[in-house]
Amino acid sequence: MALIVQKYGGTSVGSVERIEAVADKIAGFRDKGDDIVVVVSAMSGETNRLVALAKEIMDQPTPREMDVLLSTGEQVTIALLCMALEKRGYGAHSFTGGQVRILTDDAHTKARIKEIDSSRIHAQLEQQNVVVVAGFQGVDEVGNITTLGRGGSDTTAVALAAALDADECQIYTDVKGVYTTDPRVVADARLLSTITFEEMLELASLGAKVLQIRSVEFAGKYRVPLRVLSSFEDDPGTLITLEEDSEMEDPSIAGIAFERDEAKLTVTGVPDVPGIAYKVIGPVGEAGIEVDVIVQNVGADGSNDITFTVKRNDSEKARKILQDVCTSLQAREVILDTKICKVSLVGVGMRSHAGIAAKMFKALADESINIQIITTSEIKISVVIEEKYLELAVRALHSAFNLGDPESSHSSK
Amino acid sequence: MALIVQKYGGTSVGSVERIEAVADKIAGFRDKGDDIVVVVSAMSGETNRLVALAKEIMDQPTPREMDVLLSTGEQVTIALLCMALEKRGYGAHSFTGGQVRILTDDAHTKARIKEIDSSRIHAQLEQQNVVVVAGFQGVDEVGNITTLGRGGSDTTAVALAAALDADECQIYTDVKGVYTTDPRVVADARLLSTITFEEMLELASLGAKVLQIRSVEFAGKYRVPLRVLSSFEDDPGTLITLEEDSEMEDPSIAGIAFERDEAKLTVTGVPDVPGIAYKVIGPVGEAGIEVDVIVQNVGADGSNDITFTVKRNDSEKARKILQDVCTSLQAREVILDTKICKVSLVGVGMRSHAGIAAKMFKALADESINIQIITTSEIKISVVIEEKYLELAVRALHSAFNLGDPESSHSSK
Repeated sequence: MALIVQKYGGTSVGSVERIEAVADKIAGFRDKGDDIVVVVSAMSGETNRLVALAKEIMDQPTPREMDVLLSTGEQVTIALLCMALEKRGYGAHSFTGGQVRILTDDAHTKARIKEIDSSRIHAQLEQQNVVVVAGFQGVDEVGNITTLGRGGSDTTAVALAAALDADECQIYTDVKGVYTTDPRVVADARLLSTITFEEMLELASLGAKVLQIRSVEFAGKYRVPLRVLSSFEDDPGTLITLEEDSEMEDPSIAGIAFERDEAKLTVTGVPDVPGIAYKVIGPVGEAGIEVDVIVQNVGADGSNDITFTVKRNDSEKARKILQDVCTSLQAREVILDTKICKVSLVGVGMRSHAGIAAKMFKALADESINIQIITTSEIKISVVIEEKYLELAVRALHSAFNLGDPESSHSSK
Repeated sequence: MALIVQKYGGTSVGSVERIEAVADKIAGFRDKGDDIVVVVSAMSGETNRLVALAKEIMDQPTPREMDVLLSTGEQVTIALLCMALEKRGYGAHSFTGGQVRILTDDAHTKARIKEIDSSRIHAQLEQQNVVVVAGFQGVDEVGNITTLGRGGSDTTAVALAAALDADECQIYTDVKGVYTTDPRVVADARLLSTITFEEMLELASLGAKVLQIRSVEFAGKYRVPLRVLSSFEDDPGTLITLEEDSEMEDPSIAGIAFERDEAKLTVTGVPDVPGIAYKVIGPVGEAGIEVDVIVQNVGADGSNDITFTVKRNDSEKARKILQDVCTSLQAREVILDTKICKVSLVGVGMRSHAGIAAKMFKALADESINIQIITTSEIKISVVIEEKYLELAVRALHSAFNLGDPESSHSSK
């Protein structure tokens, strides 16, 4: 008998039929004797409907009232799911974020959880009820409704699992789990049975978006065993673990992430003086544009090229800012390239194994793919390449590192 | 400068455009310096949508979860209305029932208000904010969401007006106010500028459904001046007052109410023994059928006819019950007449003026309308007649009592 926190996203509860299917799944766990706390999102489409209503009134809706509005989405789902459970003869009790008391700060529309009072939930579990909690929402110190921002239901689930000291936090979604790379790009992408939190963070932030990155950080910090699995199938999915799999012998690559919608900006002929990188990048960051990869090369003539990448739809705005910077610094010119992408190899095994980078570069060279930028971290190597080579590069790397072959598995045991 | 509680129903906030119009109306009051507390219903159609979702899952949805579900409807409206006010530059602050703290008993889906904490509302009014409260909902002692049942938003408004000691409670609706009778039946039905609570109760319960009867009782009990008016026009509507208008000289009739969907049941030849009326009516009431008018006539042969009316769609069920009663009491027979209606004259002036009943019966006789049953109360005389005469009877009475003529007015001054 275990205490399991389960989270079902918007697609999993997107209709009454889906909600009934979720109730069946929960019933199965109850029959095995597990205590179940369920976190649900708004029915898919509902949040967009509510946002559209608000936008009809104002472009920038009052954040406090936006939270009052959006939090109704999950509240509808908790009620319907409890009804579906009651219909099946299983006791169920719903809680809004405020009713649990999920205490957050007062940063409306992007609040952070400060504390969870688990006493009411425990009381309901003791009465053999399934507890159904509205994800994505909480209350601040004075009782204002807050929301955690889009996807915040994952965070709610992980935070509840931590507060309840649950045996596992299961995130049900419309994919089977975490793959070595996007199966739409590589046909034999393999489902990972385990992955470490660090690898998951790199994969998530690099584009393999299965889980909200905040919830993964949270789970890692509070050591909550986290499992990603499909709400439509009965597979065990992917378990996100704290430690690297000690049974492995081979250099370990967890997967390949990629990011399509990137653009590259280069300021050439920048004077080589201290603080110059800040003078170039600073104004871009201050304009609210997220800067990704940054590289700087000092040329033989004592001048500099500074290159970085941004999201493609920020690129024109960034170019304009850089044009002013270029003029004031008396740099040569600003070059914008919107036809690039980023491909990254991720794996904790990199730490202890040399030769991974070399193998990566060779695999790309064998396909005549030119590397424009290279950056590395402890568990990740990223390259920026021409966009048209994205699929080719991902497939070449997937194959070079045998990620599709179950025999040389990273994590399937 | 006054403190006004305003309630806008589902039609008045049925779309973003309507919500914007309500915001304009509120802005006008703010510009005059009034403090405004607004109570809103769910956008029209929303409650039905939510009920339909629940009914897809179960015929008799769990009451606790039904309240969690339905209370989201008003929560959406409060957020949108606050946004519309903020857009116009007016400070606004929304409250759910639980946030105000409108404390109710725990009778889910039909809870009653026990207490209202007005401190948070006062604090917002002091900050010059319009306070927008979700109608129809509250919380019980342990924080469960409760609802007051359909139309409960009127009750919320009146209860808030009482708790805040407001100068007036204004119920905005899609009619201009209370009329002497249904304008669809009598073309020159006159809008009443005032009416007493007692008259309003009789008119409401008899079919002129403008306000929830509970909210009128509540307003009368707590001496809250209540005004019914249109959210789409700028008329002063009808003020519901505590006292009879002392300026009036003439016998005063407030209006004419009627009920179409009635049926009449008669059990003939009932033995004339004590307790017999209970033996006939008791089983009908126990079956959950509401019994309206009851009359009993003792015939010369020492036997009885007992006649009463019920809602037409309960009549067949009632007839079957009476058939059994008839057999066991050895009464003669059960007669069902589904082609009847009830017409009632209402007015506090009846108390002190004789001749009203006679005038009423004459007016009906002049039109050759046969009266089947007569019942009277302090401020009301009702007759049951053949259904086909309904419009004719209402028009004849309206004319006989000069209700359509502003010169002999009951209440317009």
